[in-house]
Amino acid sequence: MDLDSQLPHILQKRVIAHIEDDVFYIHNRRRYPHCDEFVACSSPEEIADCLKAMVTQGGGVQQVVLTSMIYIARLMDRGRVDLSLESFENSMRPILEARKTNTTARRLYQRVAEDLSRHPQMLNRHDIVPFVTEKVSAIEDEFDRIYDHMSDLGADLISDGDGVFTTCFAEHTFILSLLKARNSGKDVTAWVPETRPYLQGAHLSAPSLVQSGIDTTLMSDAMAAHYIVEGKINRYMSAVDTLCMDGSAVNKVGTLNNAIICRHFSLPFHVFSVSPDRTKKTLEDIEMEERDPEELFVFENRRITAEGVKGVYPAFDKIPRSLITGIITPKGLYAPDQIMDIFDLEDD
Amino acid sequence: MDLDSQLPHILQKRVIAHIEDDVFYIHNRRRYPHCDEFVACSSPEEIADCLKAMVTQGGGVQQVVLTSMIYIARLMDRGRVDLSLESFENSMRPILEARKTNTTARRLYQRVAEDLSRHPQMLNRHDIVPFVTEKVSAIEDEFDRIYDHMSDLGADLISDGDGVFTTCFAEHTFILSLLKARNSGKDVTAWVPETRPYLQGAHLSAPSLVQSGIDTTLMSDAMAAHYIVEGKINRYMSAVDTLCMDGSAVNKVGTLNNAIICRHFSLPFHVFSVSPDRTKKTLEDIEMEERDPEELFVFENRRITAEGVKGVYPAFDKIPRSLITGIITPKGLYAPDQIMDIFDLEDD
Repeated sequence: MDLDSQLPHILQKRVIAHIEDDVFYIHNRRRYPHCDEFVACSSPEEIADCLKAMVTQGGGVQQVVLTSMIYIARLMDRGRVDLSLESFENSMRPILEARKTNTTARRLYQRVAEDLSRHPQMLNRHDIVPFVTEKVSAIEDEFDRIYDHMSDLGADLISDGDGVFTTCFAEHTFILSLLKARNSGKDVTAWVPETRPYLQGAHLSAPSLVQSGIDTTLMSDAMAAHYIVEGKINRYMSAVDTLCMDGSAVNKVGTLNNAIICRHFSLPFHVFSVSPDRTKKTLEDIEMEERDPEELFVFENRRITAEGVKGVYPAFDKIPRSLITGIITPKGLYAPDQIMDIFDLEDD
Repeated sequence: MDLDSQLPHILQKRVIAHIEDDVFYIHNRRRYPHCDEFVACSSPEEIADCLKAMVTQGGGVQQVVLTSMIYIARLMDRGRVDLSLESFENSMRPILEARKTNTTARRLYQRVAEDLSRHPQMLNRHDIVPFVTEKVSAIEDEFDRIYDHMSDLGADLISDGDGVFTTCFAEHTFILSLLKARNSGKDVTAWVPETRPYLQGAHLSAPSLVQSGIDTTLMSDAMAAHYIVEGKINRYMSAVDTLCMDGSAVNKVGTLNNAIICRHFSLPFHVFSVSPDRTKKTLEDIEMEERDPEELFVFENRRITAEGVKGVYPAFDKIPRSLITGIITPKGLYAPDQIMDIFDLEDD
């Protein structure tokens, strides 16, 4: 199956990242919907720089990592990268290390790298591109099935008349859940915080939801409680960047504020995760990214505050499992304290 | 006493509003600190339009209303407004009705109008300007004493090492409290949410605090919980736009989010109010202002989202008294349920 036909423009795989004439193109989420354009990259380092600058982010990083593996295979085929596993790893390293908190993409890379190490005979000009392309394509298909199943579970949670709020850009699982709920006849509205400083809510979530035919309202990051009191919002759903084995999670800064507000009003707070990171037992194991506060200070080349003011931009929040109602995974919907048992160490 | 010398630039009375050659000048808070400029008004309607557009806001509205009374008196002196109480009221009406939720300025106007009705002999060209000017000047002096006293109480609440967060621009009482705490040798830091859509935190609070020598960090509206968990923030303080007789309050949208977060972490949530509005028994009596969502959609002249997305901009939040730790008033620091008794109906 290919989910792309059901997805809004910016979530389609070849929009997020594609290769054309040996140039790697990344869709520029930072300027969308104002501009609909790509950033061209000519080396793994340039791809990594785009990820650091958040040209794409969230699940976009995963698609860039997958497409980058095909790109590196092509460079090997052209003789620009040595035909060895070590060179493959060295080329991928800057891309994998560009953003450190979400580890999903790194784990997908490890699967392909392990396949390559088991089949070293494929490391030749004739086979490397088809081999990597087939592995990546299989992962893309697997994720389409996973997203399709998880959004069935998400749609089931939504009741007729629900107002759902979120944080940042929750992408496939979130948008498909709302779409399927609406297609099954439920009246559902989306309430999107703009998500400063990069405005992923305004730039990405709200336009994608509207393209999917969902009644969507943009609000500032400070308005959720206001509309919960008014009865407009009664549920929270978001993907998370990392799920720990103990059922706690890491997601875009602002998610903790929203989780606390849900708890205060006894609203359900559900998150989507394709799998926990088995190397992260608890939130203590997470490496948290601190971004440059200049990104908060400057908007559209205009400085918003005076010299002498300090700034902060933590990329992510840690969400204790006590604030999470349920976690939607490819294996089903679970309470946080079930994650360890369901995703045991033997199983993948 | 005149507090102005202790206050940052934008809180000084003649900066907020002044009259020069029959033109009424309002300091443009919307463009500060990027530009430090005034908007010139030539009629009560133009002054009202500035208030509606939030050229100044919060306590700035109060100073504009006070200075407007002198302006109208001058128009009476010039023969441009009839020398009658009815004309005085008609001229002031658009200014008083420009923003409906904060009623403090309206109550100050009523005090001067009542003085005028008790002294109708002052409604003549010779006496009207000195009479109104003296009344306004007495109110300004009274507020200087009130702010000085309330900020003594605020400073007493702050402990050495406190990180204080706020909402929007809490002006005199908040800034003087932090300043006095620091001057008494306490180490105090301010954590300022930028306060979208108008960025009063970034434009007004943070620069004013830095001018006052306070260690100040700007954050997005979604980051408070993050820094509470990190132990950087341990207390909330803000002025409120309206205090009800039952001890509940109305303040800038986002204040309810912050109050809930404080409650979750058991942090003190203190507010400043010069007096309750005796016509507002509970939050049910408050007329809430809804602003044009276009103000959310356009950020520094750039449209931030796609066509088809709906928007909201409620100007204020209602804060139930259960979330308020204490209220700092000119009469002292009180629990919300003490307000009714302390400000009884006989007393002013």
